[in-house]
Amino acid sequence: MQAKDMSDPDYVAAVTDLLGLLAYGELAGYTRLTASAQLAPTLLQRAETCRMAVTEFKQYERLAARLTEIGRNPQQAMQPFVQVLDWFHTQTSPSDWWESLINIYVGDGIARDFYLEMSSFVDPETAGLIRSVFADRGQAEFVLTEVRSACELNPALSGRLALWARRMVGEALSQAQRVSAERDSLPQLLLGGDDGLDLEGVGKLFDRLTARHQARMAALGMAA
Amino acid sequence: MQAKDMSDPDYVAAVTDLLGLLAYGELAGYTRLTASAQLAPTLLQRAETCRMAVTEFKQYERLAARLTEIGRNPQQAMQPFVQVLDWFHTQTSPSDWWESLINIYVGDGIARDFYLEMSSFVDPETAGLIRSVFADRGQAEFVLTEVRSACELNPALSGRLALWARRMVGEALSQAQRVSAERDSLPQLLLGGDDGLDLEGVGKLFDRLTARHQARMAALGMAA
Repeated sequence: MQAKDMSDPDYVAAVTDLLGLLAYGELAGYTRLTASAQLAPTLLQRAETCRMAVTEFKQYERLAARLTEIGRNPQQAMQPFVQVLDWFHTQTSPSDWWESLINIYVGDGIARDFYLEMSSFVDPETAGLIRSVFADRGQAEFVLTEVRSACELNPALSGRLALWARRMVGEALSQAQRVSAERDSLPQLLLGGDDGLDLEGVGKLFDRLTARHQARMAALGMAA
Repeated sequence: MQAKDMSDPDYVAAVTDLLGLLAYGELAGYTRLTASAQLAPTLLQRAETCRMAVTEFKQYERLAARLTEIGRNPQQAMQPFVQVLDWFHTQTSPSDWWESLINIYVGDGIARDFYLEMSSFVDPETAGLIRSVFADRGQAEFVLTEVRSACELNPALSGRLALWARRMVGEALSQAQRVSAERDSLPQLLLGGDDGLDLEGVGKLFDRLTARHQARMAALGMAA
């Protein structure tokens, strides 16, 4: 795969997979966030969480619209990723409000960082869409305020949530590995072509993702 | 209660209750619809249902904004209705996609008709908002198409769904009765003041709601 334009059928297939993964990620994220909102201790926090969920649905719609624009059926493009993402959400189903906040902060944080990295390997129009969809939505501030004040009142919570965050990362890595093994087109986006990553490049990508994750955990006062 | 304007504290209390009920109704409806979307047989139907849910959230936001505008806290205004509406949704939790469609069509249909009736008893600005929020959203067409074609393929489904619709109506009536017993301000909106309903007026209101419900059921090919 050399060209990053729509005249190359291999590239179109790869970008269809990427957009399908991202679109279903947002649709499933919307559903998860709406369910998590039910765990909120107050109506204000519940409404705020629903507002974040609705934003995810809007981003799903933009990604689906891009698929339609390049002549692909959004539902067909999402289908290969339904099982793996649903499994991820089942494995990381929060048992309380605080775990659900860690899901938003840690899980969505890593996913967003990774998708923004992927945007360097696609055509400018798709890249612009991905950067806009996964721009910082200010969700982190909401979570930081909530979790920090709860951990001050209850220091034992901090240890439990740090463990939960580790579980999120482990599941995310394990599912990412499954996706890349099953859909060869996606690692090829990163590794193929003249600007593809070599082994060192992949290592550096993981270093950047790790550094950002550690910074997020440090902001919570937790070790990664 | 004579005046229908914001200089009358009794009227403000009543309209706060009404807007609180409607706002929580939309917020809870959003949550229910998003959960129902998970029952959809295809991603297309699921996305369509989520889109309807997101519309309910937007309507919740408009009702909450109106509460803020009249100097009331939306969360406080919604609080008295949380338990009764959550109970309603628990009692009418659909076990499959078809039941969830009947919830949308029958439950939301009756609620919308009732709220539009209520709009005749409030100040023009609140009335305009309620009429706009509960304007026909075209959800009925989606449900009609889905349910009709499913019942053609499986005639036994029709009888089951007609029973389910009856259960929805029974629960709705029972919860409406609870709300009006607990929050005296709401029946007073309908019954108090110079333009309040008398016994005959209440009877006619129920006749109109019944006729519209029967028309909806007839459109499904079912008896009410």
